[in-house]
Amino acid sequence: MSRQMVDFLLGTGRLIADGVPYPDQMEAGARIDHWSKWFGFWAEVGARYERLGEEALSARFHVSAGELLWQASLSFHYAQLLWFDAPEEKEWGQGRKVEVYRRAARYLVPAAERVDLPYRRTTIPGYLRLPTNQATPFRCVILLGGLDSTKEESYLFENMCLRRGLATFVFDGPGQGEMRGRTALIHEFEAYTSAVLDYLASRPEIDGNRVAILGRSLGGYYAMRSAATDDRLRACVAWGPLFDMSDWDNLPLSIQKGFAYALGVKNLSKARRLTSDAIHLADVVEDLRCPLYVLHGSRDVIVSDDQIRKITKNVKAHIDLQIEKEGNHCCHNIYQLVRPRMADWLAGCLQTQS
Amino acid sequence: MSRQMVDFLLGTGRLIADGVPYPDQMEAGARIDHWSKWFGFWAEVGARYERLGEEALSARFHVSAGELLWQASLSFHYAQLLWFDAPEEKEWGQGRKVEVYRRAARYLVPAAERVDLPYRRTTIPGYLRLPTNQATPFRCVILLGGLDSTKEESYLFENMCLRRGLATFVFDGPGQGEMRGRTALIHEFEAYTSAVLDYLASRPEIDGNRVAILGRSLGGYYAMRSAATDDRLRACVAWGPLFDMSDWDNLPLSIQKGFAYALGVKNLSKARRLTSDAIHLADVVEDLRCPLYVLHGSRDVIVSDDQIRKITKNVKAHIDLQIEKEGNHCCHNIYQLVRPRMADWLAGCLQTQS
Repeated sequence: MSRQMVDFLLGTGRLIADGVPYPDQMEAGARIDHWSKWFGFWAEVGARYERLGEEALSARFHVSAGELLWQASLSFHYAQLLWFDAPEEKEWGQGRKVEVYRRAARYLVPAAERVDLPYRRTTIPGYLRLPTNQATPFRCVILLGGLDSTKEESYLFENMCLRRGLATFVFDGPGQGEMRGRTALIHEFEAYTSAVLDYLASRPEIDGNRVAILGRSLGGYYAMRSAATDDRLRACVAWGPLFDMSDWDNLPLSIQKGFAYALGVKNLSKARRLTSDAIHLADVVEDLRCPLYVLHGSRDVIVSDDQIRKITKNVKAHIDLQIEKEGNHCCHNIYQLVRPRMADWLAGCLQTQS
Repeated sequence: MSRQMVDFLLGTGRLIADGVPYPDQMEAGARIDHWSKWFGFWAEVGARYERLGEEALSARFHVSAGELLWQASLSFHYAQLLWFDAPEEKEWGQGRKVEVYRRAARYLVPAAERVDLPYRRTTIPGYLRLPTNQATPFRCVILLGGLDSTKEESYLFENMCLRRGLATFVFDGPGQGEMRGRTALIHEFEAYTSAVLDYLASRPEIDGNRVAILGRSLGGYYAMRSAATDDRLRACVAWGPLFDMSDWDNLPLSIQKGFAYALGVKNLSKARRLTSDAIHLADVVEDLRCPLYVLHGSRDVIVSDDQIRKITKNVKAHIDLQIEKEGNHCCHNIYQLVRPRMADWLAGCLQTQS
């Protein structure tokens, strides 16, 4: 292990792309000489931002408070990311991430409204943000995280949507974040998206006829499932998605552990079998009828080109296929080029719908 | 020279802090193996963003157009930064920076309004941006660049002010950007600030009783001069400022050349003499009465601690002195910690004024 995982994670560009400040990334590279120090480093960074955020709050500097607490949340998130071998630390990191983001939410610009949506015997935790530069009702994008990924991570992408006049809704689905302890990863993720669509339809600020969905990594797969099964979704972005679990044996061990974690099982061969049953688009793919945007990087070491071929072969809808030769998983290494393009595509699709 | 200057500039963190995307900084580090390739690299990056910006404009993706053209402008800016040994290339880079930023301005969120303010026998070129989340009249901050620095660089800091409900006004003064060819660096920079204050007083959206000023590096010196000589300025941030030119002999050669460039002279010993006459706060320092915030990094290799001591010794007003032990020039290496704090301080000062 030693530095390998550290170099991999820092090298993807993902931390910076999602909002980790460059000085923190540089300090991480200089100070974390072994994977075992990853968690402690980022936990410390998070604690520092949290303290600064609380100070800002005391001084009534609300904009700083929101941004600093968000920074804290992101640091705690990256502390616990892939930290499967120390479950107590991982839970602690998850808890801190959720807690400080929740505290940040009202101070973000524009604010994030916490929503706890009753659903079956649980609630779906999410955040709604509304643009300030548009007249109601707003077009809206539902944003989905992937494996070991949650609703607290997409703040910068939300901002990109919001600047384009799109409201955003993020939530934890089965196997994700706050939901994971109550509902593990399941086949029918789409049922949760539909519950969110019901909720959005009840909000007078949202134009229920102009809602789209975007999902990242495994979330790209969830997004396609959701769009295939609920025709209220008018457009779908699959950002670094997969089609099924046929590549399991080639996945990095940390990703395999991630699936086990989301499923709530410890045994990897059990996880292999369960994901194989739970994750495949074949049963709904023919129903995917709205415009689909697929982004894939040819240097992706997690999602194979073969997964993308299965998507393009089986989806009957119009596909806007963007293969980036230089891109890694989700094209995090060229985020400044690909992310605004996805936000534009969504805004464009929802502009012409009615 | 070889890589020394490349490593220095990339190592400061300034590019990232001002908005250069991390992938571009990384690519610069990997590909620019000699200072002679600096200009060409960034000019190429700028051309790419400009092309993408034009494409976005054609597709009516105005938010992307504004951001991509701003990115282009920033790339052209960094291409020509300190590029004193090839004057034609430097002028070209300056021209491109100005041109694409001007094209970006109306699409920025919120928009930047170009202002060409008649003054004496010239015009002062500037941009006004107004917050969208506040009621008029707005509090306002005037932002000043420093040496070899212009009004096109402060977009991210402006956004920070705007999120806090503060309008922003940036302009090129004597020796800077578009002004330099018409008016070289002079002692009485403050006359231009006062002309800007006259203009702001004429704008109904601006609360003329709640205007502050912030200047970076040499601009910090200009800001103090301006605040000392025009009491309409209610607060002043001197961000990495100097007091006089007594440290000339210890300045890096590139900075000495920068002064010669701003003065419009070629001879460095002439530049030494002219700056010594033109740049000193002593004549006005006693009149500086508004609250002053001074930020300095102890690892600054351009501005010495001695300069800061002269400021604290001679200024009679209340000083909020922030010395960052780990900070480099303008604390660019810890920008995420120091920049929001300055914006908060300004917002706080203008809140309580009336």
